[in-house]
Amino acid sequence: MNQTTKPETQIAALASVSFNAAEPPARLKEAWNPSSKLVRFKGEPLKLECGQSLDDFQIAYETWGQLNADKSNAVLVCHALTGDQYVIGTNPVTKKPGWWETLLGPGKPIDTDRYFVICANILGGCMGTTGPASLNPATGKPYGLDFPVITISDMVNAQVRLIDHFGIDKLFAVIGGSMGGMQVLDWAVNHKERVFAAMPIATAARHSSQNIAFHEVGRQAVMADPEWCRGDYLNQGRVPTKGLAVARMAAHITYLSEEALHHKFGRNLQNRDERTFSFDADFQVESYLRHQGSTFVDRFDANAYLYITRAMDYFDIAAAHGDVLANAFRGTKTRFLVVSFTSDWLYPTRESRDIVQALNAVAANVSFVEIESNKGHDAFLLDEPEFFATVEGFVHAAAQHRRLKA
Amino acid sequence: MNQTTKPETQIAALASVSFNAAEPPARLKEAWNPSSKLVRFKGEPLKLECGQSLDDFQIAYETWGQLNADKSNAVLVCHALTGDQYVIGTNPVTKKPGWWETLLGPGKPIDTDRYFVICANILGGCMGTTGPASLNPATGKPYGLDFPVITISDMVNAQVRLIDHFGIDKLFAVIGGSMGGMQVLDWAVNHKERVFAAMPIATAARHSSQNIAFHEVGRQAVMADPEWCRGDYLNQGRVPTKGLAVARMAAHITYLSEEALHHKFGRNLQNRDERTFSFDADFQVESYLRHQGSTFVDRFDANAYLYITRAMDYFDIAAAHGDVLANAFRGTKTRFLVVSFTSDWLYPTRESRDIVQALNAVAANVSFVEIESNKGHDAFLLDEPEFFATVEGFVHAAAQHRRLKA
Repeated sequence: MNQTTKPETQIAALASVSFNAAEPPARLKEAWNPSSKLVRFKGEPLKLECGQSLDDFQIAYETWGQLNADKSNAVLVCHALTGDQYVIGTNPVTKKPGWWETLLGPGKPIDTDRYFVICANILGGCMGTTGPASLNPATGKPYGLDFPVITISDMVNAQVRLIDHFGIDKLFAVIGGSMGGMQVLDWAVNHKERVFAAMPIATAARHSSQNIAFHEVGRQAVMADPEWCRGDYLNQGRVPTKGLAVARMAAHITYLSEEALHHKFGRNLQNRDERTFSFDADFQVESYLRHQGSTFVDRFDANAYLYITRAMDYFDIAAAHGDVLANAFRGTKTRFLVVSFTSDWLYPTRESRDIVQALNAVAANVSFVEIESNKGHDAFLLDEPEFFATVEGFVHAAAQHRRLKA
Repeated sequence: MNQTTKPETQIAALASVSFNAAEPPARLKEAWNPSSKLVRFKGEPLKLECGQSLDDFQIAYETWGQLNADKSNAVLVCHALTGDQYVIGTNPVTKKPGWWETLLGPGKPIDTDRYFVICANILGGCMGTTGPASLNPATGKPYGLDFPVITISDMVNAQVRLIDHFGIDKLFAVIGGSMGGMQVLDWAVNHKERVFAAMPIATAARHSSQNIAFHEVGRQAVMADPEWCRGDYLNQGRVPTKGLAVARMAAHITYLSEEALHHKFGRNLQNRDERTFSFDADFQVESYLRHQGSTFVDRFDANAYLYITRAMDYFDIAAAHGDVLANAFRGTKTRFLVVSFTSDWLYPTRESRDIVQALNAVAANVSFVEIESNKGHDAFLLDEPEFFATVEGFVHAAAQHRRLKA
C-alpha cells in the first residue's frame, strides 16, 4: 500500500512543534515535507537489523532521465554521510548546485540522456526520508532518540523498496562514494542478483578504528551541547548548533589532506597583516573551519548525524561471512569498479585494495584505479578528470555488456 | 628580586573562589600552590611578544641530579602541550609516574647521576607556573581571558629567567618533544650562545595548517561549553568539563597512528558480544577515547588549553628571518640531534627534514634519525629502544666535546 502523494499528516504536523527559542530551522520543512519526490510505505514493515521494524516510513528521492521499456537502464546513486537526493540541480536548503553534477548529468560520465538515475535520501537522513527528525506516526512528534538505530543494510533495504516501487528488477549500476560506497558494497553482497555493475568509490569494507574514533568525537560534541536535550531538542524547540558545528569541524579536517590544507591556506592570516594575540580566527584555515561548522548546522539535523555516523561505525560487510571478505562476494556476477584517491587518509587505498583482493579471490570481474590527487577524501566530489574518464569508460563497457542501446 | 618561598598570597587566595557547583578541582591547588619547587620573579617585567608584560610571575619546576662546580652539566627538559614539570617521580595530580622516566633518571639515556636536569612548567600552564588559572596579582582572582596571549618565545624567555636564577651561563643540552621541541628550536635560534646541544624531537619549525585546524576544533569545543562562561568559569565556580573532554578526544586521535589504533582496538567491542544498537560506547576505541577525555579534565585547565594551543599555532621560527629557516640558524655552534618517528602524522618526518636541511645549509653540526615506529606521535613518550640508544649516543658524544667528566 504505497502512496506517492505527500502525506498531509506530515504537513499539518509542521505547526505542532513550537520553537520557543526561534523559528524552526528552514531545513525541518525539508525533513517533514520535502521538495523532492516522495513515496510512503505502509503496511509492510521494514525489518531492521536491531530487531525493530518501521511500519510506516517514507523515502524522498529524485530521478533524472527516462527509464527505458525493459527497465534495464537504471543507475542508483547512494549518497554519503551529509549528502542528500539532490545530486543534480539546486539544493532546496543550501541553494547550491547538486553535489555530484561533476559526474552526472546530460553528456556527463554518467549520462542522464542515456540512463535513468535515481538518488534517495537515506533512511535515518533529514531531507525527507524517515529519520530521527521525522514525525513519529505513533506520537505525531519528532522521533528523536526513539528512532531505532539503523545500519547500512537497513538503508539499502529501504532503497530496495524504492526500486521495487519502480518495478526495476535489476539495476544497471549502483554508485556511491564514502558511505555511499558502503551502500554499494551492501547492494553487491546482499542483493547480488539485482546489481549489474557496482562502483564503490573512496570507501572501505569496514569502518576502521580511527574512523570510529573520529565519529565518536563528533557524537560526543553533539551530546555535550546542553541544547541537545538528550536528543529531545526538536520537541523542546531547541537546536544544538554549537555541538554539531564542532562535530562538523573535526570531520571536515578528515575529508581533506594535509597537502590540500597547506596549498589552500598554509599559515595565511585572515584579512589581517599581524597576529591579533587573541582567540579570533587569525588564520584563514580557522575562519574556513568555523564557516564549515556554522553552515552545516543550517542544513543538517544533529540526531541524524548521530544515527548515520553510528551506521557507518557498525559497517563491516565481512562480519556476517565469517570475517572473510571474499566469502561475502562469493558467486557474484556483478562487474566492479573500485576507485581510491592517493591522498585520501580517511579511506586510504589499502582499504580499496582489500576489496579488490577479495573480489579477485572469487574470480569476480573487477577494475581498480587509484587516482593521483592531493585533495584528500573529498576528491571524489571534486574536479578529477582521470576519475571522470575512469567512470565513463567503465560505464560505457558495462552498457555494452548489458546490451543497452546507445 | 626573586624569592623561592611559596608566596603566601597565593595560598591565602585558595579560599577566595567559592565553587557553588562543587569543590574546586584538586588540580587548582597545584596551579596556585604547587608541590614542586617554585621561584617568583617580581620587579623585572617579562616582556611578551603581544606587547604586554608580566611584572609578577612564578615558575614551578623540578630538578634532579647535581649541578657541577662550573655549572656546565645542566640539561633543560621542555614539556609538551599537556605535560608538566614532573618528568620523573609521582605526579601530584594524576599519581602516575613521571612522563619521561623512560628517557631520564639514574642510569637512563639522560643520566641524572651525571647531569643536572631541570624541567619547568611552561608559562601559560596550569601546574604552578603563571597561566590563565593563576591568580592575577592585580585582582586576586584567576586571570581567565585577562591573561595575555603568549608565544613559544615567551615560554622560553621565562625559562631563561630560571636558568639565570641558577647562575647557569650555558645549558649543556635542551631537549623536548612536540611543543617541547618547538621550545628547543626557540632556544637554539634566539639564545644561541646558551645552548651547547639541542634535541628537537617529533616536532616542526612551524605549525602546519592541519595542526592549526585540529587545535581550532579543540578550542571551539571548549568555547561551545556554556560552563566555560567566556573564560570566566573559575570566578564563577564552574568547570567546562564536557567541552575540554571533546577537545582532548579529538587531539588524542592525532597523537596515535591508524596502525596503533588498529592493533590496540581494531573493531573490538567493549565488554559485550553484540552491538547494542545504541549510542553507548560499543567499541573499545570509543570507551578508550571517553576515558582519555574524562581523565584529562581532572588534570588540566580549559583556558590553559586555549592559550597553549594558540602559542603552538603562532609558532613559525622562520617568520622573523624572512621566512628562510636557514637564516634562523645562521652562526649556530650548537650540536643538534633531530628525531622523527615514521608513523607520526602530526609532525611527520618531512617537517624534521626541513629543520635538518636548514641546519645543513648553514653547516651546522646535526644528526638526524628517523625512528621506525607504528605508535604515532606519542612514540617519543613510549618504549622505543632505538630512540633511547640514539639520544644516549648523542648525549655521550656531546659530553665528550663539552669535556664533561664521566
